[in-house]
Amino acid sequence: MIKLNTFFETADKYAEECIRIRRDLHMYPEAGWTEFRTTAKVLEFLETEDFRAELGTDIINPDYVMAYPGEEELMAHRFRAMSQGADRSIIRRMEEKGGYSGAMFTVEGAEDGPTVILRFDMDCMGVDEPEDNAHYPYAMDFASKNAGLMHACGHDAHTAMGMVVTRILYENRHLLKGKVKVIFQPAEEGVRGAYAMVQSGIADDGDFALGIHIYPSDGPYTALAGTQTGLYATRKWDVNLTGKTAHAGGAPQEGNHAIMAAVNAISAMNGFLQDGRGVGRLNVGTIEGGTARNVIPGYCRFEAESRGSETVVEERIFEKAEGCVKAAAEMFGCEYEITTTGMSPAGGGDEDLAAEIAAAASELIPELEKTTPVQVNTGTADDFCFIMDRVHANGGKACYMSLQTQLAAGLHNSYYDFDESVLLAGVKACIAALHVTGTIA
Amino acid sequence: MIKLNTFFETADKYAEECIRIRRDLHMYPEAGWTEFRTTAKVLEFLETEDFRAELGTDIINPDYVMAYPGEEELMAHRFRAMSQGADRSIIRRMEEKGGYSGAMFTVEGAEDGPTVILRFDMDCMGVDEPEDNAHYPYAMDFASKNAGLMHACGHDAHTAMGMVVTRILYENRHLLKGKVKVIFQPAEEGVRGAYAMVQSGIADDGDFALGIHIYPSDGPYTALAGTQTGLYATRKWDVNLTGKTAHAGGAPQEGNHAIMAAVNAISAMNGFLQDGRGVGRLNVGTIEGGTARNVIPGYCRFEAESRGSETVVEERIFEKAEGCVKAAAEMFGCEYEITTTGMSPAGGGDEDLAAEIAAAASELIPELEKTTPVQVNTGTADDFCFIMDRVHANGGKACYMSLQTQLAAGLHNSYYDFDESVLLAGVKACIAALHVTGTIA
Amino acid sequence: MIKLNTFFETADKYAEECIRIRRDLHMYPEAGWTEFRTTAKVLEFLETEDFRAELGTDIINPDYVMAYPGEEELMAHRFRAMSQGADRSIIRRMEEKGGYSGAMFTVEGAEDGPTVILRFDMDCMGVDEPEDNAHYPYAMDFASKNAGLMHACGHDAHTAMGMVVTRILYENRHLLKGKVKVIFQPAEEGVRGAYAMVQSGIADDGDFALGIHIYPSDGPYTALAGTQTGLYATRKWDVNLTGKTAHAGGAPQEGNHAIMAAVNAISAMNGFLQDGRGVGRLNVGTIEGGTARNVIPGYCRFEAESRGSETVVEERIFEKAEGCVKAAAEMFGCEYEITTTGMSPAGGGDEDLAAEIAAAASELIPELEKTTPVQVNTGTADDFCFIMDRVHANGGKACYMSLQTQLAAGLHNSYYDFDESVLLAGVKACIAALHVTGTIA
Amino acid sequence: MIKLNTFFETADKYAEECIRIRRDLHMYPEAGWTEFRTTAKVLEFLETEDFRAELGTDIINPDYVMAYPGEEELMAHRFRAMSQGADRSIIRRMEEKGGYSGAMFTVEGAEDGPTVILRFDMDCMGVDEPEDNAHYPYAMDFASKNAGLMHACGHDAHTAMGMVVTRILYENRHLLKGKVKVIFQPAEEGVRGAYAMVQSGIADDGDFALGIHIYPSDGPYTALAGTQTGLYATRKWDVNLTGKTAHAGGAPQEGNHAIMAAVNAISAMNGFLQDGRGVGRLNVGTIEGGTARNVIPGYCRFEAESRGSETVVEERIFEKAEGCVKAAAEMFGCEYEITTTGMSPAGGGDEDLAAEIAAAASELIPELEKTTPVQVNTGTADDFCFIMDRVHANGGKACYMSLQTQLAAGLHNSYYDFDESVLLAGVKACIAALHVTGTIA
Repeated sequence: MIKLNTFFETADKYAEECIRIRRDLHMYPEAGWTEFRTTAKVLEFLETEDFRAELGTDIINPDYVMAYPGEEELMAHRFRAMSQGADRSIIRRMEEKGGYSGAMFTVEGAEDGPTVILRFDMDCMGVDEPEDNAHYPYAMDFASKNAGLMHACGHDAHTAMGMVVTRILYENRHLLKGKVKVIFQPAEEGVRGAYAMVQSGIADDGDFALGIHIYPSDGPYTALAGTQTGLYATRKWDVNLTGKTAHAGGAPQEGNHAIMAAVNAISAMNGFLQDGRGVGRLNVGTIEGGTARNVIPGYCRFEAESRGSETVVEERIFEKAEGCVKAAAEMFGCEYEITTTGMSPAGGGDEDLAAEIAAAASELIPELEKTTPVQVNTGTADDFCFIMDRVHANGGKACYMSLQTQLAAGLHNSYYDFDESVLLAGVKACIAALHVTGTIA
Repeated sequence: MIKLNTFFETADKYAEECIRIRRDLHMYPEAGWTEFRTTAKVLEFLETEDFRAELGTDIINPDYVMAYPGEEELMAHRFRAMSQGADRSIIRRMEEKGGYSGAMFTVEGAEDGPTVILRFDMDCMGVDEPEDNAHYPYAMDFASKNAGLMHACGHDAHTAMGMVVTRILYENRHLLKGKVKVIFQPAEEGVRGAYAMVQSGIADDGDFALGIHIYPSDGPYTALAGTQTGLYATRKWDVNLTGKTAHAGGAPQEGNHAIMAAVNAISAMNGFLQDGRGVGRLNVGTIEGGTARNVIPGYCRFEAESRGSETVVEERIFEKAEGCVKAAAEMFGCEYEITTTGMSPAGGGDEDLAAEIAAAASELIPELEKTTPVQVNTGTADDFCFIMDRVHANGGKACYMSLQTQLAAGLHNSYYDFDESVLLAGVKACIAALHVTGTIA
Repeated sequence: MIKLNTFFETADKYAEECIRIRRDLHMYPEAGWTEFRTTAKVLEFLETEDFRAELGTDIINPDYVMAYPGEEELMAHRFRAMSQGADRSIIRRMEEKGGYSGAMFTVEGAEDGPTVILRFDMDCMGVDEPEDNAHYPYAMDFASKNAGLMHACGHDAHTAMGMVVTRILYENRHLLKGKVKVIFQPAEEGVRGAYAMVQSGIADDGDFALGIHIYPSDGPYTALAGTQTGLYATRKWDVNLTGKTAHAGGAPQEGNHAIMAAVNAISAMNGFLQDGRGVGRLNVGTIEGGTARNVIPGYCRFEAESRGSETVVEERIFEKAEGCVKAAAEMFGCEYEITTTGMSPAGGGDEDLAAEIAAAASELIPELEKTTPVQVNTGTADDFCFIMDRVHANGGKACYMSLQTQLAAGLHNSYYDFDESVLLAGVKACIAALHVTGTIA
Repeated sequence: MIKLNTFFETADKYAEECIRIRRDLHMYPEAGWTEFRTTAKVLEFLETEDFRAELGTDIINPDYVMAYPGEEELMAHRFRAMSQGADRSIIRRMEEKGGYSGAMFTVEGAEDGPTVILRFDMDCMGVDEPEDNAHYPYAMDFASKNAGLMHACGHDAHTAMGMVVTRILYENRHLLKGKVKVIFQPAEEGVRGAYAMVQSGIADDGDFALGIHIYPSDGPYTALAGTQTGLYATRKWDVNLTGKTAHAGGAPQEGNHAIMAAVNAISAMNGFLQDGRGVGRLNVGTIEGGTARNVIPGYCRFEAESRGSETVVEERIFEKAEGCVKAAAEMFGCEYEITTTGMSPAGGGDEDLAAEIAAAASELIPELEKTTPVQVNTGTADDFCFIMDRVHANGGKACYMSLQTQLAAGLHNSYYDFDESVLLAGVKACIAALHVTGTIA
């Protein structure tokens, strides 16, 4: 307990720093795969001569990167990052490692012990932050300076917590058993980033996977659910059908009608939602095709997503939808391309580990007014499931902590905001969870 | 002209015989591919020691036979034929040649000249003949003795004409130039028989193709249109989809839904009717599938037909429909089978030849009150088009004579009947047409 | 406890009689709405001068009867019932009450107390019973004497238990508090019978609803689950589309294509399976339409069922499917008719009551080797849910006991059979459950 | 003949002027309903004190105007017209008459005689004219000065001919019998303008309807087909489906899926193309809907067109498509709106009148190297059919002259151009046609 208290004391020391960091990150939000300034700030804060981040291809397998922006767009973001204070040499180090944002710090303990994967996500959303004094970040002058971008899902808070937790661990590493691999993950929105990180092997040796996410509480208090469960599998995918134009009046038989191919594919896809193994979802959310009413349309594109309460359910829906697109393309003589732009399996943390963490948190963290072992959020998804899956495959345990607080507005809403006292609670929840894993005695 | 008159005089001699033959055939109608008694009667009437029919595989290519009945059914029909007076030894000759009905007689002329293919069809329809004294065949006691079968499309008349024409040619063969190959074709209904005959090569040497069919006239007179044109291409096809049953409530994902496959195939097929090259038709006329409402259906069958004012239009519709079935089967994990049960290209006779025949008939045949070169019957089909096509491919000419008379009721109607005087007119029309070809001087 | 023991002792006295009754019922199975002999046998066994059954329209509201057979068919079944030993005067009494099968006996207690609805189902299935000595009923000479019909779902056992339970209650009615309304329900298969009974008002005064059903156990023992839960809502419905025939080649525009209407309706229906409130199911299990391939089809029929883990989910699927049929009929100028042939809401018993019943059964019934409070049978349906719903609406409690035993073959299988010792266990389970309700002290 | 020669002589006098006018119009192309400068130039050239144009609501019925631009857009076009030399007072006169472009001049003859409707179209296309010296208008410095707009369908030529023809008629009006109503029609592209003009009644008294259009000839010569026939009926229509958004994962049942409504509507529409009365066409050329993949889409729009070789065939296709949209909207709880943006019946000129005109032209116009009475252009459409229809309804006759010449590139192609000598030939063809009507003796 003496050791543990040391960690909590260090946490208290960083309480204000954590808020300062969060506000800085909030002012400079960066979308998925472009978190260059955010990554730089993490490194600037944490790196010492003997404590160095792993970057890019060391922690990301390029073959599994989804929905990656074009090089021109990336360059523009790197320039903006530098113009907004990112250390030029860190940007250069990222470029040497394939250009990816994201980082991993490994804190090695003084004694043997378990390996814990501790993950924080960093990207923002495509939302305009309101210029309204009723909105706390604007009133307090730390609203987004990047038009069209905003931290409306709390990843600024998560990253700030991660930075402080990592510093605490590093400062007290002589008290640590085993090791903690802290992942600062890019591109959680759209479930794009975790897959490529897991495929690089960084979670292969994990005995525990821990994550944390701010969620709305159902009352005026700060609470912790030891773990989220029931996260849905999901996949985001784009379909591009290419046909052949022809004059619709004179020679319709010479065209390959891409809109008709899409119509038939979409119509058929709904035939595969029923599954005795769980609940499925499928949505074609956008469609666009053709150039003129008197021309057999030569292309049609649509954006879709599939979900499943079980991974196999989502997989079947996607495979069948893929088959429908392929078959409908054949029917109408079209070429097709299906691009997966994001993906996550179903999953959730372990209830036994969750119960222990909830009990420890309840006892150790005065900032928390309530704890429960489990939060079930039917229908939502998070690619932290990839990391949990990998650790589960090793026989390890996982916990995805739900840090609950009253929100000014819901997740993804432009008026989203939270009471910053939750930051310290979150840092301490991570310490409590590490305590349960045995990393901190 | 002296020679030609000889042929017409022989025709007059057989006028009553032709009526007698037609009534006999009318009493014993036989459906496509089971015209055993009909074939036997043709041979009994025509064969002499030196004038023998070709049968079965000599004139039919088994690889191209469509919608052929099962052996058990065929045996039953052979027995009925014999019980209704068919010569047992002729039935046996047919069996030795693969068991097919149908025959060809070749009348060789005394001098060189063109080769003419002259075709008559023999099969009846699946119609119950009315037992009603208002119906002439019943009142005159020659109504069908075979339940569910009736000559309601005049093929009894065509066969009778063919028998008499062949006899006339044979009796006057010393006056003939070139040769006439008289085909007694099985299975014209459902456009099933001509394809296999043409694929045996019997029309390959044809310089002319001639056929005749009774049609309604638009007034109280007997008329001849030198040729029909604008016959549509058609195909009759059956689709059989085989899926996998599963409990619809408990494990729908384990089933492969054959009805859904059919639904998607049929829905897509209609997307291919537009063609700048001509008019197309597609109809799914029947459907049947599944066993119980709470079981994912394991099979679904449907019967369809496609048509085209041009052969290429029908071919595209069928190929695309085939593609739709294949693709929809893939979508739903089903097996599929498409069976073509009948087929004919588009076509029609040549207008120049038709004009000559109409002119000759007008001059030579007093029984005809009107002649016109051409009859356009949009939307109907006849597999005589296969024979015309083959002769056209040789650079030959074709004519499909339309012998028009007032009908008691329309084609395929159970009250169908015609004035038997048209039989002699038809026989003479064939002689006139042969005269135009140069076979009869 | 003395009173309770009296009931159990009476039960032991009827152990063999219960088996005899079950075998008699098994020999003469009757399908839904035709349980005339079965009803007669119930009355013959139970009625005394002062203990009379209520019949027909007293307990069945004709406006809510679903999938009722035609009068001719019913008459044939009444004759068979009489020829197989049904008392003619009882058949006549049923006819006087609208002709329905089914009965209700009300056992009035000596003291005030709760009203308990106790329901047993009576109908058989459309299954041929195997003539195979490996099949116990055949070997023991009590296999079905009614071709194509068999008790393959245990309703013979349920009815036999119900008869014996009712006799026990009647014999000990001086020891009873409140009253027990014993319902012998027709037409449970296809979820057709309970709706009309509940709509007659007979369950309106229920404080408790009890039912019992034999289910497979997962080991070689007899067990009782206090209640089933998670029964799905379901509906069985037939669609009949009437179009207009026309010649598919000549005048397709004059037809109204009933198969195309069905295709479009079925295709669209699958668009409504996703529901955040629960799991849905939809199956078009059979289809049939059209008469000939060259005719625009004038009719198409299909049989479907919908299900939902929540009643509202099923209701939405059915309403939307109904809308799809209506709309597709309009598209293609067809008339439509949708007939509901069976229906049940979702539901299940109360877990607190179930726990008490399980505890009591465990203590009181030596024949039971295991008890658990709850059995969840995802995806199955039973129209006992209508009765539970009505009692719940009164603020009452419900329990649908699952009497588990090893089966020779699964429910609805033609080799279905069970160890008859389960009959006595079931009778006693009913007594134990009544004890928990307070009816038996 | 003396009178007629006078007209031809006046024509020769204006040969160069006609080219000058055409080049001026070519430089300032204006799209449908915005032909303000074009109309002004027509008036500036033709009006005298006693020869005044009728404008706006005098010749256009606002209730039948289709696809009319918004007021702001119209204002911008009026300003551009004035900045490009349109007489301000003429623009003001148009505004006083409802703001429409287009004009009609009526030339009254000195004697009684027939009334002839003579129509010329004025609008350009949405095509960028190439800046390429290989393109004659660019090389000769009269290419379009209006970005994105070009006369690529010869309406500049038609208007120039119309201006010169009208001037010739006016100058020789003392030689004229009856009267000629010369219509300068806006918005022929998209078949939008003629309907509202005809509905104003201006063609009600027509004994003849004459029009002229430049078409490609099939050889290096200038030819005239007396009339086009076989013009298809067509309709251009937009569909707007409005549903209700909802979260696709959490509460899909709360959304009304506008894309699914469109998919089902489009899928069904193809079921109505078959018609024994003629050839039909249907094309959904563009589609666009939805905002994000994880949201049930709240809107979907598509643009379609239907055609028919007979007006009834197009009407049926459109009505059925409308029914499909309505029904599919109902299925998915969506609102719908269908807007017709253009429309024309099927039609063509009279062959007897055409033969006379061809004969007269052949005799009278040395510039023409070939004449034929009829040009059949399967599949194309022109709203001049409305005018022909109205005159036919009066028992009048119509001729839509096809003035054929070799084109640098096809109609609607950005390299479209023609030899300007065709202008004089066209003017003379109009005079020859008027001669045939008896207006010019």
